[in-house]
Amino acid sequence: MHRYRTHTCGQLRKSDVGSVVRLSGWVHRVRDHGGLLFIDLRDHYGLTQIVADPDSPCFKIAETVRGEWVVRIDGEVKARTSETVNTNLPTGEIEIFAREMEVLSAAKELPLPVFGEPDYPEDIRLKYRFLDLRRDTLHRNIVQRTRIIADMRKRMGEVGFTEYSTPILTASSPEGARDFLVPSRIHPGKFFALPQAPQQYKQLLMVAGFDRYFQIAPCFRDEDPRADRLPGEFYQLDLEMSFVTQEDVWDTMEPVMRGVFEEFAEGKPVTQKFRRIPYDTAIRTYGTDKPDLRNPIEIQAVTQHFAGSGFKVFANMIANDPKVEVWAIPAKTGGSRAFCDRMNSWAQGEGQPGLGYIFWRKEGEKLEGAGPIAKNIGEERTEAIRTQLGLEDGDAAFFVAGDPAKFYKFAGEARTRAGEELNLVDRDRFELCWIVDFPFYEWLEDEKKIDFAHNPFSMPQGGLEALTSQDPLTIKAYQYDMVCNGFEIASGSIRNQLPEVMVKAFELTGKSREEVEEHFGGLYRAFQYGAPPHGGMAAGIDRVVMLLVGAKNLREVTLFPMNQQAQDLLMGAPAEATPTQLRELSLRIMAPKKED
Amino acid sequence: MHRYRTHTCGQLRKSDVGSVVRLSGWVHRVRDHGGLLFIDLRDHYGLTQIVADPDSPCFKIAETVRGEWVVRIDGEVKARTSETVNTNLPTGEIEIFAREMEVLSAAKELPLPVFGEPDYPEDIRLKYRFLDLRRDTLHRNIVQRTRIIADMRKRMGEVGFTEYSTPILTASSPEGARDFLVPSRIHPGKFFALPQAPQQYKQLLMVAGFDRYFQIAPCFRDEDPRADRLPGEFYQLDLEMSFVTQEDVWDTMEPVMRGVFEEFAEGKPVTQKFRRIPYDTAIRTYGTDKPDLRNPIEIQAVTQHFAGSGFKVFANMIANDPKVEVWAIPAKTGGSRAFCDRMNSWAQGEGQPGLGYIFWRKEGEKLEGAGPIAKNIGEERTEAIRTQLGLEDGDAAFFVAGDPAKFYKFAGEARTRAGEELNLVDRDRFELCWIVDFPFYEWLEDEKKIDFAHNPFSMPQGGLEALTSQDPLTIKAYQYDMVCNGFEIASGSIRNQLPEVMVKAFELTGKSREEVEEHFGGLYRAFQYGAPPHGGMAAGIDRVVMLLVGAKNLREVTLFPMNQQAQDLLMGAPAEATPTQLRELSLRIMAPKKED
Repeated sequence: MHRYRTHTCGQLRKSDVGSVVRLSGWVHRVRDHGGLLFIDLRDHYGLTQIVADPDSPCFKIAETVRGEWVVRIDGEVKARTSETVNTNLPTGEIEIFAREMEVLSAAKELPLPVFGEPDYPEDIRLKYRFLDLRRDTLHRNIVQRTRIIADMRKRMGEVGFTEYSTPILTASSPEGARDFLVPSRIHPGKFFALPQAPQQYKQLLMVAGFDRYFQIAPCFRDEDPRADRLPGEFYQLDLEMSFVTQEDVWDTMEPVMRGVFEEFAEGKPVTQKFRRIPYDTAIRTYGTDKPDLRNPIEIQAVTQHFAGSGFKVFANMIANDPKVEVWAIPAKTGGSRAFCDRMNSWAQGEGQPGLGYIFWRKEGEKLEGAGPIAKNIGEERTEAIRTQLGLEDGDAAFFVAGDPAKFYKFAGEARTRAGEELNLVDRDRFELCWIVDFPFYEWLEDEKKIDFAHNPFSMPQGGLEALTSQDPLTIKAYQYDMVCNGFEIASGSIRNQLPEVMVKAFELTGKSREEVEEHFGGLYRAFQYGAPPHGGMAAGIDRVVMLLVGAKNLREVTLFPMNQQAQDLLMGAPAEATPTQLRELSLRIMAPKKED
Repeated sequence: MHRYRTHTCGQLRKSDVGSVVRLSGWVHRVRDHGGLLFIDLRDHYGLTQIVADPDSPCFKIAETVRGEWVVRIDGEVKARTSETVNTNLPTGEIEIFAREMEVLSAAKELPLPVFGEPDYPEDIRLKYRFLDLRRDTLHRNIVQRTRIIADMRKRMGEVGFTEYSTPILTASSPEGARDFLVPSRIHPGKFFALPQAPQQYKQLLMVAGFDRYFQIAPCFRDEDPRADRLPGEFYQLDLEMSFVTQEDVWDTMEPVMRGVFEEFAEGKPVTQKFRRIPYDTAIRTYGTDKPDLRNPIEIQAVTQHFAGSGFKVFANMIANDPKVEVWAIPAKTGGSRAFCDRMNSWAQGEGQPGLGYIFWRKEGEKLEGAGPIAKNIGEERTEAIRTQLGLEDGDAAFFVAGDPAKFYKFAGEARTRAGEELNLVDRDRFELCWIVDFPFYEWLEDEKKIDFAHNPFSMPQGGLEALTSQDPLTIKAYQYDMVCNGFEIASGSIRNQLPEVMVKAFELTGKSREEVEEHFGGLYRAFQYGAPPHGGMAAGIDRVVMLLVGAKNLREVTLFPMNQQAQDLLMGAPAEATPTQLRELSLRIMAPKKED
């Protein structure tokens, strides 16, 4: 017989009745039923019920074991009586009558209960993460995470991608977020950086002729912790393809991601054909470039109905500034004064002057628009708005007016709010889409200059021609996001692999050729020696896992996360370096040490 | 038609003759055969021959293209004549008659030729790694590396392991090599460390109940560069199992590793059943714990034949010190004075006083031992040695004498030297074995104390009992290596998961319980709360790939390696940090900057 087990705790069935078996695992729970001891023995694979009665040779030991002790048990598999069968448990038809028991590892009093998973303070959970991870929900989330990643790997292989690992000790990247630095011992005063993403390396792989790269890539950004961002490291499904247009990337990755979602959606519907929504359309329709398409509300411009109308606030704004528009957020079933007032109060709480509305109700046979706006613009315009929006008795519409560039975010929030409050959002589905045609540049109001809207790696639509002849702020990029249920889950672009186009694109942001060479030396140099057209994207694995397991917090899908103060409480990191280490690295600590 | 290609450069066959196709790729080579241009077009998948004659509409463009330009070509697939078929090329039965050609990216004059792969200085190759990686041999090595890793993943999944990613920003580990440190911005004066291996995390995973973990794990050690070690990072196939004995680890991993070797050995024989050789036996038989079993030479002790013999040097040593032994290195076919003298000179070059020998030759009908030692010990002892070693006419034996602990390494080197010089080593095979029963402790002569021979994580054979009752230097560990062709390719152990045994084991090295708690806080704490017996190992991926592709240098199997001065010449790392970065990290550079 094996030293520790003949079966796992999830393995035994009715067909095993009569066998003598050996199991090892953790004591999940002990119950004493009038002298009869029931032990739920747990391992990675499941739970098995162990029974010891006072006649059992190991009863004395069985009496001593406590929750989370690790024990080995030998005994006979017996069928449970029909009344005691547990249909929730794969092993629920049997139990083990214990003959022998060995304590492999006792446990001190637990700082954190495993059984039952009651709420517990986060810092205790992180310090004793090895106990926290035994809890069923977290354990299952982590296993699910590994399955999702394995499934991504499998699907990427099936569509012809090869996984390459790119360096983790690399050069500081001048764009984007803050780097983690790693002092070089051999070159005093110099530093490596941890990659924010393998962006430059994956492009170099294309220039080196590797064609279809992917990687489950660790990425590092030294940003201040936020609720939706863990300090330190995170993982991307990173990929790149040569000789492709953006449509190729979409056509390749849409089935992969749809497949992953379908595999782990547990029966929830997943979008079959992802809509490709231009950035401008997304902003005008959803007030965001990360629309939750489960929300059926679509914003519409209704400016013409307010121009020259009796609602003077809007009418004057429209008359005075050609940029002004009025957008309507139609809210089916929102047609009560109570709801409209609640939305208005919410808007004021968000710092807005208020949220104008009309709601429609039947007055006898007649459908009537109610509220101050309807009164001001009159029956005809009210009816025209209702017809445009397709609203009926019991529905409402909310209005925002001004420069859309300034109010679209708020309009999007009002759309979200209305959809959620009115239960219009079907939560049990995964709605995926592409957002495409992002702007190439954006205007930095503070610095009074243009800069890259996303990153300097993407190709401007229209190429060199567009850069030299077009208003830069109207240029679109071959840049796209994949969005699911209101979250950006992937982002990518066709890259700018032409040195002259790269130099011109930087020039418009005020950067010289020399600066490009200095900051993107490796990549810029590579583009001089035969660079294929290429593009790709990167999907955020943590976010995909969160969506699929329904977790609200990144720490519920991460094995050993840091806390919100960027500390690993389990391992005690970060920690002070020894004087020898500092000397070897030619470093001195400058600031007076904070107590923390 | 697709913007860039209808087929890859490795795809077209005779059955495609007549099709109009579009290919994109790199110009591998251009040949001008009397006005007819032949272009070998290359991509990741293969080579296709393009033909353009002066009547071709794209002839003018075709004349301008040079090596490593990226071009798109449209044309018709034609069958080659039987004389021009190239059977070395999968596409060798066809060629493309070019109608249209577009330069997608021109190339400047190449700093490094791709075609033909002539030798080139390493630093140029690393600075222009994107060109170097286009060279066929390196390109194939890298692709083979990705396949080997994918195969490892597949096999680990098949035997029930799950891949978990462990943190890369973690705590400094007190054992082993030097850590790379990462300054914390949020906690001034404190540092994260990059993991030397995920050792503690994988053990914590077992304590958390995950049972069978593996990871293709990046590992980081800040060691001085060496020929057989790249600066910075390397990859391990890391794994851990719960409720196992060391035999379980061997029985699980032997088929996995044998499978990987067989898959990529390209027909070379691979050991079917790995021998399990105790450490002591390996030292006495091969003079090393990393024996190359392709070398048939086995060292034998022949002390008794020299005790009291006429060879006074050895006889006196034996008489004066009971530790002294004489080992013989039998060398089949080495029986010539010229070879024996060459071995002797080699030994002197290695700093030894010399290497005594006997060689056997036929004198008429008689087999005679020749050389000074044979003369001194006489015919009978010479014959006894020959019989013990199983040697014949034309064979030799070399002798080393002294304290085996001091000379075994040299004996091993002599065994290797003799085997290689005499061509006894069958190079075209993979001989794998386990080395087991390593010593738990070793004696540090300088510090006059004992310390862990390998690492403090392994379980001493005999447990607490052995630690309290046995001479520490005689205690064995449940510690094992996997060795292939003279290289350690994996190492592992059954772990010490019992806190009291851990404390006792450290105590014998002079470390207190408090120090254990301080240095191994997370793991030591975890062992208090129900820790399963567990063990595992880690295999060096770079070494396995090198063996399988026959590379002599780590840089031939690594995508973007640093140079021997620990610099990334392509990306320009390490580099100076900006004053802002240093201020944010509360760091100051101490030493005057070196020019480098």
